[in-house]
Amino acid sequence: MGFTQQLQRVLYKSITNRVHVSRSLHTNHCLNHVKRSIDWAKNKSPKYRILYVRKVMAQTDAEVAAILEPLRISVKQQGDIVRSLKETAAPDVDIKKAVNELKARKKVLEDKELSLAPKDVGFDRAVLEELLKRRFFFDQSFAIYGAIAGQFDFGPMGCAMKTNLLNIWRNHFVLEEQMLEVDCTILTPEPVLRASGHVERFADLMVKDVKNGECFRLDHLIKGHLEKLMADKKTTAAKKAEYEDVIIKLDGYSKDEMNAALRKYEIKTPVTGNDVTDAIEFNLMFSTSIGPSGAIKGFLRPETAQGIFVNFKRLLEFNQKRLPFAAAQIGNAFRNEISPRSGLIRVREFTMAEIEHFVDPSDKLHPKFEAIKDVKLNLYPACSQMDGKSAQLVCIGEAVANKTVANETLGYFMARIHQFLTKVGVDPKRLRFRQHMSNEMAHYATDCWDAECLTSYGWVECVGCADRSAFDLTQHSKATRVKLVAEKDLPEPQQIEVHECVPQKPLIGKAFKTDAKIITDTLKDLESDEILKYESDLEKSGQFVLNIEGKEFPITKDMVTIRRLQKTVHVEEITPGVIEPSFGIGRIMYTIWEHNFRVREGSDQRAYLSLPAVIAPIKCSVLPLSGNSDFKPYVKKISEMLTQNEISNKVDQSGGSIGRRYARTDEIAIPFGITIDFDSLSPPHSATLRERDSMEQIRAPIDELALIVSDLAKGKKSWAQVKTCYPLFEQQESTKN
Amino acid sequence: MGFTQQLQRVLYKSITNRVHVSRSLHTNHCLNHVKRSIDWAKNKSPKYRILYVRKVMAQTDAEVAAILEPLRISVKQQGDIVRSLKETAAPDVDIKKAVNELKARKKVLEDKELSLAPKDVGFDRAVLEELLKRRFFFDQSFAIYGAIAGQFDFGPMGCAMKTNLLNIWRNHFVLEEQMLEVDCTILTPEPVLRASGHVERFADLMVKDVKNGECFRLDHLIKGHLEKLMADKKTTAAKKAEYEDVIIKLDGYSKDEMNAALRKYEIKTPVTGNDVTDAIEFNLMFSTSIGPSGAIKGFLRPETAQGIFVNFKRLLEFNQKRLPFAAAQIGNAFRNEISPRSGLIRVREFTMAEIEHFVDPSDKLHPKFEAIKDVKLNLYPACSQMDGKSAQLVCIGEAVANKTVANETLGYFMARIHQFLTKVGVDPKRLRFRQHMSNEMAHYATDCWDAECLTSYGWVECVGCADRSAFDLTQHSKATRVKLVAEKDLPEPQQIEVHECVPQKPLIGKAFKTDAKIITDTLKDLESDEILKYESDLEKSGQFVLNIEGKEFPITKDMVTIRRLQKTVHVEEITPGVIEPSFGIGRIMYTIWEHNFRVREGSDQRAYLSLPAVIAPIKCSVLPLSGNSDFKPYVKKISEMLTQNEISNKVDQSGGSIGRRYARTDEIAIPFGITIDFDSLSPPHSATLRERDSMEQIRAPIDELALIVSDLAKGKKSWAQVKTCYPLFEQQESTKN
Repeated sequence: MGFTQQLQRVLYKSITNRVHVSRSLHTNHCLNHVKRSIDWAKNKSPKYRILYVRKVMAQTDAEVAAILEPLRISVKQQGDIVRSLKETAAPDVDIKKAVNELKARKKVLEDKELSLAPKDVGFDRAVLEELLKRRFFFDQSFAIYGAIAGQFDFGPMGCAMKTNLLNIWRNHFVLEEQMLEVDCTILTPEPVLRASGHVERFADLMVKDVKNGECFRLDHLIKGHLEKLMADKKTTAAKKAEYEDVIIKLDGYSKDEMNAALRKYEIKTPVTGNDVTDAIEFNLMFSTSIGPSGAIKGFLRPETAQGIFVNFKRLLEFNQKRLPFAAAQIGNAFRNEISPRSGLIRVREFTMAEIEHFVDPSDKLHPKFEAIKDVKLNLYPACSQMDGKSAQLVCIGEAVANKTVANETLGYFMARIHQFLTKVGVDPKRLRFRQHMSNEMAHYATDCWDAECLTSYGWVECVGCADRSAFDLTQHSKATRVKLVAEKDLPEPQQIEVHECVPQKPLIGKAFKTDAKIITDTLKDLESDEILKYESDLEKSGQFVLNIEGKEFPITKDMVTIRRLQKTVHVEEITPGVIEPSFGIGRIMYTIWEHNFRVREGSDQRAYLSLPAVIAPIKCSVLPLSGNSDFKPYVKKISEMLTQNEISNKVDQSGGSIGRRYARTDEIAIPFGITIDFDSLSPPHSATLRERDSMEQIRAPIDELALIVSDLAKGKKSWAQVKTCYPLFEQQESTKN
Repeated sequence: MGFTQQLQRVLYKSITNRVHVSRSLHTNHCLNHVKRSIDWAKNKSPKYRILYVRKVMAQTDAEVAAILEPLRISVKQQGDIVRSLKETAAPDVDIKKAVNELKARKKVLEDKELSLAPKDVGFDRAVLEELLKRRFFFDQSFAIYGAIAGQFDFGPMGCAMKTNLLNIWRNHFVLEEQMLEVDCTILTPEPVLRASGHVERFADLMVKDVKNGECFRLDHLIKGHLEKLMADKKTTAAKKAEYEDVIIKLDGYSKDEMNAALRKYEIKTPVTGNDVTDAIEFNLMFSTSIGPSGAIKGFLRPETAQGIFVNFKRLLEFNQKRLPFAAAQIGNAFRNEISPRSGLIRVREFTMAEIEHFVDPSDKLHPKFEAIKDVKLNLYPACSQMDGKSAQLVCIGEAVANKTVANETLGYFMARIHQFLTKVGVDPKRLRFRQHMSNEMAHYATDCWDAECLTSYGWVECVGCADRSAFDLTQHSKATRVKLVAEKDLPEPQQIEVHECVPQKPLIGKAFKTDAKIITDTLKDLESDEILKYESDLEKSGQFVLNIEGKEFPITKDMVTIRRLQKTVHVEEITPGVIEPSFGIGRIMYTIWEHNFRVREGSDQRAYLSLPAVIAPIKCSVLPLSGNSDFKPYVKKISEMLTQNEISNKVDQSGGSIGRRYARTDEIAIPFGITIDFDSLSPPHSATLRERDSMEQIRAPIDELALIVSDLAKGKKSWAQVKTCYPLFEQQESTKN
């Protein structure tokens, strides 16, 4: 490692560490300072260098803080306005307006923070993407047919990594918590998604070209139009400021506000210059029909969660009727994005892994909370966002104790999510938990913390951890009239009054003829609260109206007898609350790639992926030093031994120097490489084992290699441990013999 | 085990074994004989009993053979007719008619064979299904909404078993052969499925009620109608025979023949009695549109294979351009069945695991064939089907040598499929490989062997092993004009003549104006064979017609110069052939459930599933002998130790005797159970370990249990081995204390 890079790395490490320790914000700005000073410091003593670096950093700290301070104050002022509006119960429309302004100011602050924050040294997305596509981690689907936006295929490397990721997810969550994993169908009939609110509310705004029907996502169209105007030299500074303000606030615009902007700026389509329609709410679900008649309308599920909710009864029964329990599901979901973008971040078809933890709403303690209470998370609660503050490193135990995080169960899952993400390769320094502000939550959520990862696309939501309360179970219960409740033991038995509606069959039969049966059945099944309501109707007007499947039947006093009974109950029925951690697998994979992308020093700047061994697509390469045929039986034997130990491995017998072949295996993140060389041929037969990140090598007996790699790949042993047991080995000479 | 049941079991075993050894057909008929004789034999000596049983079996053998013989002859006669028609190149329509008759006779033979074959003793599908639904292995999707036909959810037990099954599949196929596993999107644009032939040919015939539009699968409707007529006492014997004949031949009917039957028998809809439309070809793919404009038509993929074919180029590159290699994919596919039935056997959404093995069509040897050549398969080749013979147990090496199976690669996969299926619990005695006859193959296949499993629904295709030849790659190449070929080294360099078409730009420009560019580009890209064809046109008529995207351009002699060049080539381009093993995961799971369903003897007739430990949803139960609170810390510790070793486990602390809780864990196929009893409480701390099938128990130190169960669950040790290391233990007394 060259001195420059070494110093840069030390600096970068200390910078990013300190971001979390001191919460002072270090910056690109800082890094540029540092870079410029490196040449100067090069010839000084190490001790002097460190002092020098500290000085530079302290300076830049102060500068960055000075830049951000007014923005923080501006957010805080608006946050206070929102708070006071809420406290004084101001009209909704005023609150909404103030919140939009708050969000806009937050965005300005966050954008500035990001622009000043230290970037991953040497990261270049184009280079990463080229590598990922060339080595077929993923690529666009149906590329030979011209591809479709928003659809991606995982190639052998992406697919193997995804399989590993999902297996770790299963062990980390399902196995550890004895969750009930289910596998439900993707095709979902309309009534299910109507009850869940998706038919009505799962939509984005779009407009159409009035002539050719081309569709545009409305916020994208407005933003593009204004950006073009801003780039125009003739635009005045005042206008530019106005346009920028609109762009920042767009996210919070209502349909009416969007339409107004559309008309005010006379926006046409970018290519044809045609007029566009008014805003249309475009439902993001793919629709189809089930069965041959076309009568059963269905959708491809937009989330896997609903499959769990509709199976709640059976799952509760499987858990011997006891709360709490969690169900889980891994599967594909679909969203017909109007204009997909940002590579794997916003796609039309994606794999989710979702957990629905059902819990007594009055008891959200978690039995294992103690075990994770000291886990430190980078928390960004709604109140900090309103105050213009940054995220802070906090122990989850403390955060639950001081009510930053609402309860133990939510806190438990947040800590477990953090442990999972860092285990599979997400950089903890680029991971934060951001709480949704009350106006940005999905229609089903009452509280939500997103695990967001910092990538070159900005902060990306990778895991949502939402409290859906009893929303979904209540909705499905209403739609189907099936009780979706759990029974909870009462502290002591209670006497309650229950009501019974006894139909007088002869009278009802006479009055309603063929409808009589359904009427008497409905009357018998009435709940206490319904009976009481009807009883009061009877007293007031001598009749009440029974509504059955849209038909109305007037029931008079003589047709029913209402009885009151005392009953001793030992349990009460409760609709469980739901805590939902929901993982976007593609987004997590993309984050891992960015966070583990490295470039080796040296003239050829070889790029590679430093994935943790547990998720590396292939665990070990097997390379003969050259094409010499004496090596072949050893290659075959070692590969077979690895396979028997369920270690995925790749033989590369192609030409090219060993260094070049190592580079090829580094590109696809193979963490360990076994090389058969001339010393392998004579007893005691041995081969070399290379570790990808350090490029260090040891020499070990061939018979022991499979077990060593197995231990390393499963994380049972570290490379440092293995190194102490076997002699280190220096790079083979490929010219030998 | 009672004597009766013991004898029955011995008999059943020897019967089913002998089916394979002697190919004599044993039967229910036989079993009834045997049952009736059991009482009689009960008091005789063991030696006498065996002699007696042999005698009974020999008798029934002969009887069954006598029943089937005329049916076999009838098939053979028709098979000979088909052969001679083919040899004499008779008209297609005659061959087709003869083949339909052959299929009809085969069906009669097979139905009779099945009706006489020994049924699984005591198997009752209703009892199995009740168990599978009650313990939530699977159930209908959206049941609280009234459910949708042909859609099923896997509950916790089904889902865990499916995960295990797929992991074993990955180890058995993907890891072992270093296959390239991919994960492609489900949504597929229309042009892809048009090229693959699915848009045009993937259809079933249906009719609609002319008044209410209700749809009926046409063959089901005709069959139902004729079966009703046959059940009518007034129907004459002659008519009954006619109806039966139609029912048997229905499978082979063309659209015209179906329409004719519809009219001849004046078939109406069963409930409304309305007229029906003529036969309509209903495409079985679910359609949707991709993107907001509705302009991009797409389908849910009907198979996962196409995702692999369209990625062929990238996969070949990943494999460093070398053949052979295999790609694999696990994922969901969709078929909009007109009327789904038979539970998990025919559904609308299902998981497939498919392998596409790309190979040089002139070299289908397989390097690992030697390793599996002695595997014995139950083969049922097309020729045996034509001769009225049964399936035969044959070594795959022999079958390839005598050309029953076309080549080593196909044979290799068939043997590996057999090994996989038996490893996960398919009964080898109820597994056969049946070759498709030439008229029943899918549109893409040139040869196909189905792995069929015998279930209570009859023989069910669980794995197809098809030779798709170069069909798909050729079709996609034609549709996209992208070459999908591999390069193959020539034994020695060859001189070949190549042709070049040089456009005379000025003349073409003058003649075709704005179309000139595309014309000159197309001319430059012409292949040698196209140039030669056009050259001959030029010689004949002085011009040729160039067809570009539906437009025709007459090209005259002066517009082009055709050059001949000599070129030395070292490689030739070949379109690989494809061998495709394709697994229906749901069908395999259902088969495993049927083949492993057992009922314990005794008054309470407890049913359980004897799944192999490797696919059991949960590997180990942890049960305290009673609710005594002293047991709790041990339960917790043992469960944690198992979890750390990645052994799925289930704690059952509920009430109920230990025997009852064992029965509950047996129902969900948990192969091992650890019980903490009073002896566990004092040092040296130990607990008992019970094996599900034998119900035997040992006692072992608590600290060793996780490792013992891990070895057992992974198949590293057998129960017999474990038993030798630890003392056997007799059933605990739950009344102790």
